[in-house]
Amino acid sequence: MRNIKLIIEYDGKSFNGWQKQPNKLNIQGEIEKAIGEITGEEIDLIASGRTDAGVHSLGQTANFKTNSNIPIEKFPIAINSKLKKSIVVKSAEEVDERFHSRYSVKSKKYRYTINISQYGSAIYRDMEYHFPFNLDVQKMQEGAKYFEGEHDFKAFKASGTSSKSSVRTIFKAEVIKNEDRIYIELTGNGFLYNMVRIISGTLVDVGIGKIKPEEIKDIIESKERIRAGKTLPARGLCLVEVKY
Amino acid sequence: MRNIKLIIEYDGKSFNGWQKQPNKLNIQGEIEKAIGEITGEEIDLIASGRTDAGVHSLGQTANFKTNSNIPIEKFPIAINSKLKKSIVVKSAEEVDERFHSRYSVKSKKYRYTINISQYGSAIYRDMEYHFPFNLDVQKMQEGAKYFEGEHDFKAFKASGTSSKSSVRTIFKAEVIKNEDRIYIELTGNGFLYNMVRIISGTLVDVGIGKIKPEEIKDIIESKERIRAGKTLPARGLCLVEVKY
Repeated sequence: MRNIKLIIEYDGKSFNGWQKQPNKLNIQGEIEKAIGEITGEEIDLIASGRTDAGVHSLGQTANFKTNSNIPIEKFPIAINSKLKKSIVVKSAEEVDERFHSRYSVKSKKYRYTINISQYGSAIYRDMEYHFPFNLDVQKMQEGAKYFEGEHDFKAFKASGTSSKSSVRTIFKAEVIKNEDRIYIELTGNGFLYNMVRIISGTLVDVGIGKIKPEEIKDIIESKERIRAGKTLPARGLCLVEVKY
Repeated sequence: MRNIKLIIEYDGKSFNGWQKQPNKLNIQGEIEKAIGEITGEEIDLIASGRTDAGVHSLGQTANFKTNSNIPIEKFPIAINSKLKKSIVVKSAEEVDERFHSRYSVKSKKYRYTINISQYGSAIYRDMEYHFPFNLDVQKMQEGAKYFEGEHDFKAFKASGTSSKSSVRTIFKAEVIKNEDRIYIELTGNGFLYNMVRIISGTLVDVGIGKIKPEEIKDIIESKERIRAGKTLPARGLCLVEVKY
């Protein structure tokens, strides 16, 4: 069987998240249905990871097995023609049969966008979190550095969620300011449930002076969710890129 | 009476344009209603100009007269609290009684956004025109220069629309490329109906080689709508700024 890898952009506000679930519009289900219509097969689409309702993607990656002999370069346009405009397959590539969108991940990059203008944006309101307060970007940048490296991120995962290990490596943690917007960009080998949104909430606490940058180290070591910041809203989050 | 000037951002896709009209959601009507609720008066809001259904604004300017004694700095938050999130009043300023949002305009700046990537964007689909072809940006830049200056733009207004004169001055016409996006930015003392969208369509024709840059001069002089390019879709257009 052929193994096809897709790169997918989507507008998170239009869906109840990536994962297939009955009676709720979801991205996985929509794409599986679209590919099914084209290939005549029942498709099982494996993503690099789920994204929650409201979370956007510029680079979600997913793969599926097929016996179809549709030329690889025809896949994006064929699938897109069956999809709502809120999902766009940006590329299709034939990959080794052992390739697995989740298990083969080398790194994932997420971006969290904060709009600090006084009244927020009408046009971009579903793509950012409006927080109309002064944030000390330099302090946020200092704080972000403490997240880099291999750590047990137990303090930065949604409480009550289980996963075998909460040890992850963040390769790069950046805070970038551009006019009225602050972008928190995290690249790592994997992220726990809500981890990017909790790290972003913690960096906002650093930005308003509630937490000192160097306290991040203690919070990580405490492994206590209660010591970290709030989980920021889903709409500010975007999965930018997945590398293999 | 006090004369209040507002700067307004809106998401054009949510409305049937700026202008008040019965039974159709429109921006003017929504803001007049919001201000009316706050001041208890019947409000007549005058904009720098109408925008069509689907056209966005980062800097629409409008003014209204009021006897209310609400402090000027309270207006944006008070009005925004009554508005849908697709409209945001970004500032309010008390101006001379003779100030008129339309008649006092010195210059207006519009931006038209074209996405030239193969499959377009899911997230930004309502804020740009998807045109998946190679565009020669340098030629478009050369062509744009011919629009600068005072000209009779009769060839670049929607046919069938009347206006006293079709002479306008474009102070600056720029074409900017940033990765998969091309921005056409026009600043002028005023624009005819559909003028920015027709100029953009004509510059796309230059970009694909259908029209030579220097032919723009002849098209302007011909005053014939049929010689100019297509009217590009409203969703790519944004009113960026109005100066007085």
